[in-house]
Amino acid sequence: MPTIDRERFLADLSHLRTFGAVGTGVVRPSLSEPDVAARRWLSGRMEDAGLDATLDGVGTVFGRSQHAGPALLLGSHTDTQPKGGWLDGAFGVIAALEVARAIGEDPRTQDLAIDVASWVDEEGSFLGFLGARSFCGLQDLSLIDEAVDGSGRRLADALAGAGLAGEPRVEMEHGRYVGYVEAHIEQGPHLEAEGNLIGVVTGIVGIRTMLIRFTGMQNHAGTTPMHMRKDAGRALVDFVTRLNGEFPEIIDERTVWTVGRIDLDPGASSIIPGVADLTLQFRDPSEDVLERLEQRVLDLVAGANGEIAVEVLPRHETVEAVALDDRLRGHVASAAEIHAPGRWVSMPSGAGHDAQVLALRMPAAMLFVPSIGGISHDFAENTSDDDLALGCQVLATASEAILRAGRSQ
Amino acid sequence: MPTIDRERFLADLSHLRTFGAVGTGVVRPSLSEPDVAARRWLSGRMEDAGLDATLDGVGTVFGRSQHAGPALLLGSHTDTQPKGGWLDGAFGVIAALEVARAIGEDPRTQDLAIDVASWVDEEGSFLGFLGARSFCGLQDLSLIDEAVDGSGRRLADALAGAGLAGEPRVEMEHGRYVGYVEAHIEQGPHLEAEGNLIGVVTGIVGIRTMLIRFTGMQNHAGTTPMHMRKDAGRALVDFVTRLNGEFPEIIDERTVWTVGRIDLDPGASSIIPGVADLTLQFRDPSEDVLERLEQRVLDLVAGANGEIAVEVLPRHETVEAVALDDRLRGHVASAAEIHAPGRWVSMPSGAGHDAQVLALRMPAAMLFVPSIGGISHDFAENTSDDDLALGCQVLATASEAILRAGRSQ
Repeated sequence: MPTIDRERFLADLSHLRTFGAVGTGVVRPSLSEPDVAARRWLSGRMEDAGLDATLDGVGTVFGRSQHAGPALLLGSHTDTQPKGGWLDGAFGVIAALEVARAIGEDPRTQDLAIDVASWVDEEGSFLGFLGARSFCGLQDLSLIDEAVDGSGRRLADALAGAGLAGEPRVEMEHGRYVGYVEAHIEQGPHLEAEGNLIGVVTGIVGIRTMLIRFTGMQNHAGTTPMHMRKDAGRALVDFVTRLNGEFPEIIDERTVWTVGRIDLDPGASSIIPGVADLTLQFRDPSEDVLERLEQRVLDLVAGANGEIAVEVLPRHETVEAVALDDRLRGHVASAAEIHAPGRWVSMPSGAGHDAQVLALRMPAAMLFVPSIGGISHDFAENTSDDDLALGCQVLATASEAILRAGRSQ
Repeated sequence: MPTIDRERFLADLSHLRTFGAVGTGVVRPSLSEPDVAARRWLSGRMEDAGLDATLDGVGTVFGRSQHAGPALLLGSHTDTQPKGGWLDGAFGVIAALEVARAIGEDPRTQDLAIDVASWVDEEGSFLGFLGARSFCGLQDLSLIDEAVDGSGRRLADALAGAGLAGEPRVEMEHGRYVGYVEAHIEQGPHLEAEGNLIGVVTGIVGIRTMLIRFTGMQNHAGTTPMHMRKDAGRALVDFVTRLNGEFPEIIDERTVWTVGRIDLDPGASSIIPGVADLTLQFRDPSEDVLERLEQRVLDLVAGANGEIAVEVLPRHETVEAVALDDRLRGHVASAAEIHAPGRWVSMPSGAGHDAQVLALRMPAAMLFVPSIGGISHDFAENTSDDDLALGCQVLATASEAILRAGRSQ
């Protein structure tokens, strides 16, 4: 089986960290200056590895093997959250690059075809999963002209600024791929807490995000008696308390729910809020569970709607739960058992990943390595060098097995 | 007794409304272009009324009677909230102007001295009660150089832009005043609901505003299991629910409390809030009640402080409850009984007013007229012409009585 070069892998991962480094973290949102610089560097490293590298018209870095298919596609993303960690996405991209090198250098595997991608904008600064969706032919391209990031920067201007305006977009070559495998940090606490080293991902949770609006009557906080108020903020707080009380009765083991945003309007200490908005997000690997939770939310909204009007605004995000490919998962599990016997586990992913897009077009699998303290999307995000290298080696072993199985079919 | 000119009074009030008019409302925050224009117009109307008018170094318009004291000071403010009503402050200023005119025109009262003020920045765009505080010698003048409004405009620049930089500030002349009377719209629903036409204000509620911060652990909303979360937003919601449950047990009849602002950090749908802030404001005419409520808040904070840290940040606003002057109140009540027999009531003010500053330096009183629907700080704020004119006439009658009593002492 191919053997990765641990030092080379870790050195490239450390070098990628320097683009946009802030303390122990990384600020490298999609198509920012450090992100574009990182993409150009990555493209050069792919060329060094013997891949034909392209920085395409949406910003994806794509390294294509010079070998004919069947090929295995490996990748993840190198863009980060606005205040991100150094491994989210980056680990999977550099692991993919190292696997392409290790397989290309081993005489027994050097005829196998590994393509490597760093998909643009997984984190959704402009359009979530833009690179993966563009590659898969799933992106509504007209949105590219309209998209802006949180600071108002237009995606079209960002692409032009990176010199990518008018460049061709890399699109999936039909018939070339046996599948897609993505390595990633867990971003959660399960592996570390249970002493496991590898997570073999069974599926990616579905996400429902609901915007709920409470409309009361704005008024003076000094002169309006309590019994005459229509306080939208108070109705919101009552609603969340009721929801937090009822959800535990109907969730499954892996369900999570979060109220991540609350806005009171006008948001002044002396004014009774006339309008209050909250964002409720819940995730579960099962669409049935998601459906049950959404129905309960709708029941709670109907029950609360009265003096204060309560309504669900059009959802701004729904991601369907995705099951990953059984056969590919089996190869990843076998490789995990070789390199970390008894210390791997099957588990769903609570976070979204490019693999959920690729899975719509080809067999897909993922593997996780532990996140120290379960911390992610934070400057403190980290994983030990040993765990990173192990994950990379498992990816290499699984990749060979998948390609050999693909050829022997 | 002096008789006001209803048409002249209403015409001036309507003209003042044109400065910064937006639909039925007014956008005339302190020292904005329309506010400065309104002040210059008002200064001219004071001169027309025979007053010596000054636009002083902080922006207060002051019209001084040419008669020697003892004088009665009448006034309110002509600045508005960012989206304000047309009567808040404006009614009291134009009523004061009309009373000065009516008293000056009546041969039986024309030797009485009425000074009229439109205090700058009652609404606190830069520094709350700046004009009243400056007049009373209670303003820390060094703050004028530092103050900025919500848009970042510097007070010093706003004063320079209005041509007021270096102009003298009007200061209280010791020994001149028998007191201060302010007419104002109620800004609440009590008068209308009970069919009363005049409110004789007993005192102005004290205000305590507390900023409470919850500090948990920011984390990924998909990968962090419920039992491992330290969700600051959820702790905030639980806290508000407990407070809303306990406050009714310990409040008085007139107590009000409001959570006007909630901020979850970072405020994203996919991130568990690491920090959550709320602003709690409560008001009551009694300092004892306020003290009891604050103690309960501190107990609730101590009880909630644990896995999630809960702390009270330094209060940004505390206004002591102010009792108004019994003797002046008596004159206002007598005038109310003359013009609206049986249809006036004694009541506290739930809102803050310039009178609470003046009351620290001289006897002070206030009278209220009804607010339609109790609405204020809103474009819909309104009062019938009859009620406005009645309030102005009560102020005129009370003013003569106060000055006659002052002379006969």
